[in-house]
Amino acid sequence: MTELLFIGLGLYNELDLTTKALQELKTCKHIFAEFYTSTLNDFNQNAFEHQIGHPIHILTREDTEKGTKILTTANKAKTALLVGGDPMMATTHIDLRIRAITQGITTKIIHNASIITAAPGLLGLQNYKFGRTTTLTYPEKDYFPMSPYEVINDNKNLGLHTLILLDIQADKNRYMTANEGITLLETMEKHHHKNIITPETLACVVARAGSPHPLAIADTIEHLQQRTYGPPLHTLIFPGNLHFMELEALQICADLPPQIALKLQKL
Amino acid sequence: MTELLFIGLGLYNELDLTTKALQELKTCKHIFAEFYTSTLNDFNQNAFEHQIGHPIHILTREDTEKGTKILTTANKAKTALLVGGDPMMATTHIDLRIRAITQGITTKIIHNASIITAAPGLLGLQNYKFGRTTTLTYPEKDYFPMSPYEVINDNKNLGLHTLILLDIQADKNRYMTANEGITLLETMEKHHHKNIITPETLACVVARAGSPHPLAIADTIEHLQQRTYGPPLHTLIFPGNLHFMELEALQICADLPPQIALKLQKL
Repeated sequence: MTELLFIGLGLYNELDLTTKALQELKTCKHIFAEFYTSTLNDFNQNAFEHQIGHPIHILTREDTEKGTKILTTANKAKTALLVGGDPMMATTHIDLRIRAITQGITTKIIHNASIITAAPGLLGLQNYKFGRTTTLTYPEKDYFPMSPYEVINDNKNLGLHTLILLDIQADKNRYMTANEGITLLETMEKHHHKNIITPETLACVVARAGSPHPLAIADTIEHLQQRTYGPPLHTLIFPGNLHFMELEALQICADLPPQIALKLQKL
Repeated sequence: MTELLFIGLGLYNELDLTTKALQELKTCKHIFAEFYTSTLNDFNQNAFEHQIGHPIHILTREDTEKGTKILTTANKAKTALLVGGDPMMATTHIDLRIRAITQGITTKIIHNASIITAAPGLLGLQNYKFGRTTTLTYPEKDYFPMSPYEVINDNKNLGLHTLILLDIQADKNRYMTANEGITLLETMEKHHHKNIITPETLACVVARAGSPHPLAIADTIEHLQQRTYGPPLHTLIFPGNLHFMELEALQICADLPPQIALKLQKL
């Protein structure tokens, strides 16, 4: 029986693989990896191949989207596709899994950590108070999607927090920084004037989640833009209504200045 | 320097621990685990202690909530608290982390897979189309919270999917089943009449995510209630608007009957 495994890599490096993933990988004939839909904070191919004991074939963006190479291989022998975070977050993988099953290939998902729960955890924000997640992409010539701004607005109206994933353009070695993300949202504010992105707005930056020294910072946008956050990956979080324990957590776990916390407490 | 690690156990058994977690656990003097806020599908203490090479002290619910035992230990030597899924999902852990940092204890989070991303992944539903997550708890004599019903309604109005976590009462060995969850929601429907839980409503059940044979089923509530889903843990998902690829995924990955899919396509 032919088999295709979607294996989650987690957040940071080769040490984030689970024992189950390592066991499964030992019995795979072919191992692919793709870093276009998601990536790791610190990917080192040699370290991975050493950890797995098997060469990895890194797919181009085109290969990943087409999927033909993966499916042809999986039709012949047990094959794994390594994906950053928890797999099946991207449409590409859902599509690939549908096509695999339709071709009679057994599929299996080996889960792993995702930024979706890691970022709230590092900040001490409660997961069930998050609304819809959104993604900020680098604007193209004729394409400047406003949806992230609208998602923050919708969530805020419901009192909910918003997690914002930032663009990954692995082929251009371009990873959107928290500062770039905030600047884009400020541009959207200038078009929409809903007053949800102001210098006084509270926001949070999480950088390098899953690394030995992740950064979690909460402050006003004005203050956040006065500093930088080091190497990628970065994530933005716009809090909605804060429970008193969340407000305490932002002070203790994310360096929210006491005077800002005091102001928020009075709201 | 004293240190407290919050280590995520992932979803199923001891094989879900990451290499990083295993390395960190080797240098811990004390290892606690709690299964009140979350649990594993298949927890076996012996298998865990064998995998870790160190005895585990399982905390009672009271010990977990008080946290004194953990903090006293962490104040003396490197200590780990093992938690199902990705840690820091429960208020208890956020509170514990705040208190640890306040006492001068360094804290660290080792992330792992969570049902929050695993369940959508198994069904082939897109993560960014989920609204707020909610939890169904067993009703108490004078306490029958309606919030899950309202969350489904709010999300549906925005076209979004809802993930519903089901009650875990580890001390009573009681784990809410998908059938019990649906019955509770039907009771809420009788009180609120918003027509969001009807026999024709589409819903999904995910059982034993992360196990070798997870179940992912999509069907009408009427059909879903005609069958059972085996041992815990179960999760419910109420889809909002479905993208055509999501509808295809529910058919291919979650056995949605073609005649139901056809009806949904026409909506």
